[in-house]
Amino acid sequence: MTPGTAASERPDDRPDDHSDDHPDYVHGYSRTEARRLGDQADTLADLLHAGTAYPAGSRVLEAGCGVGAQTVHLLAANPGIRLTAADLSAESLARARARVAEQAPAADVTWHHGDLHRLPFPDASFDHVFLCFVLEHLPDPTAGLAALRRVLRPGGTITVIEGDHGSAFFHPESPAARRTVDHLVRLQARAGGDGLLGRRLHPLLTAAGFTRVSVRPRTVYADEADPALVEGFTRRTFVAMVESVRADAVAAGLTTPEDFDRGIAELRRAAGPGGTFHYAFFKAVAVNP
Amino acid sequence: MTPGTAASERPDDRPDDHSDDHPDYVHGYSRTEARRLGDQADTLADLLHAGTAYPAGSRVLEAGCGVGAQTVHLLAANPGIRLTAADLSAESLARARARVAEQAPAADVTWHHGDLHRLPFPDASFDHVFLCFVLEHLPDPTAGLAALRRVLRPGGTITVIEGDHGSAFFHPESPAARRTVDHLVRLQARAGGDGLLGRRLHPLLTAAGFTRVSVRPRTVYADEADPALVEGFTRRTFVAMVESVRADAVAAGLTTPEDFDRGIAELRRAAGPGGTFHYAFFKAVAVNP
Repeated sequence: MTPGTAASERPDDRPDDHSDDHPDYVHGYSRTEARRLGDQADTLADLLHAGTAYPAGSRVLEAGCGVGAQTVHLLAANPGIRLTAADLSAESLARARARVAEQAPAADVTWHHGDLHRLPFPDASFDHVFLCFVLEHLPDPTAGLAALRRVLRPGGTITVIEGDHGSAFFHPESPAARRTVDHLVRLQARAGGDGLLGRRLHPLLTAAGFTRVSVRPRTVYADEADPALVEGFTRRTFVAMVESVRADAVAAGLTTPEDFDRGIAELRRAAGPGGTFHYAFFKAVAVNP
Repeated sequence: MTPGTAASERPDDRPDDHSDDHPDYVHGYSRTEARRLGDQADTLADLLHAGTAYPAGSRVLEAGCGVGAQTVHLLAANPGIRLTAADLSAESLARARARVAEQAPAADVTWHHGDLHRLPFPDASFDHVFLCFVLEHLPDPTAGLAALRRVLRPGGTITVIEGDHGSAFFHPESPAARRTVDHLVRLQARAGGDGLLGRRLHPLLTAAGFTRVSVRPRTVYADEADPALVEGFTRRTFVAMVESVRADAVAAGLTTPEDFDRGIAELRRAAGPGGTFHYAFFKAVAVNP
């Protein structure tokens, strides 16, 4: 769901718009956004991280660690790894560092502030590379993957997790709600990203030179049988994410405040009585030949 | 994927349009359609039937058994059950009977020709009810479920499997392909059905008086890593299903032959080099209180 790069230390009363840090991050950098990323990562941790197991001592790179929302889960599941966590935003990195210090104080983590396309590490520096909700923000994801392949040893694996907003469908069906989700996809495209990237993981990894590419959907389906999932995912993750682009969607002329709010209200019915919601993440594992 | 009620013994040269048997069946009744249902059931059997296990001796009703595409899998996984298989179409029932005679000759099956809304069985006649790709064709699925609940004993379970065409997304993305899929949904709606029913299983079962309703997606994702799945599902099941409504979509004025064919050609790219395809079925289990 498109988070992953950054969130600043701003007070809540500052408007939820783009920061001057990396203005193209479609979700903005407010504290509300940072809280959303935390809610999301906790609700989804088991679903997304299951199956990612690195032997103790492995040199692992997390590219685009953002505020550390996934980093703490990666470390919890793999306590013996030697992790290098990299991000483009110094502010995000500082938050990730604080989060890891609190939740995994014994972890072996090196922090790197820099662009994943130009990492200063020698070839084959890592046994494994992990990235989550990062490719969707890159104008050229194949180039990003190729740059990461360079620092991965032959035989090492890359693990990539991405969402795909085209996988979102819900009951009751609503054209207004659907249009509102489409605004998010459109804004992300304007920022050079792709909110429909999940479905492209196989061809992208193949194009970047990886082999044994294996992609599987990791699906969230929420209905009244699981109120915690409805709250944690449908309402506080997905609807909150769409809602967060309200000002930008209006400013871009995609919608009016009234239409946007109507779309959100109709989307929220998926989290109400008799409502259902479906979303598919994709998790890929591939090998550097 | 919307099959499940019938397919006639017509020769292949007869046009692939509606029969006079049950003209509202959106997929038609040709032999091509019957073959499609067979391909589909075999490719999907493990995915859809996993977890459906009835104790030997159980009295099980399959409502809307159609040509027996799912019946043979149900019997293979549950060899000791006492099955009653019912369908509205005498022709379909004859085909199902022949199929079961060939593939499960020892099975204990009673065949019933009739409407699932008006089954002549006493209350609580069955321990379990199973239906697959049936509700999507009913004008009032809640009424259908309530009628089935009457013949189910208290404490007995109902298992329902349905598709949802709104779950179909693919790479490369294509508005023309998407419109073509939408024609199928629209035609099914005109025939009184709902091609987006999967997402509604929880509220429908709840409305029909069932309890402990548990719904899970059963997702098919196909890419180049699994050419057999691309062939068996993307091409021979999904694209074939959409393609089967060509004449009806044109006759209904939804599209032109040229536009339809262009949509199919673009949809087929999901089964070509670098293509990917996603579809979610939903499987529900609920209890008659």
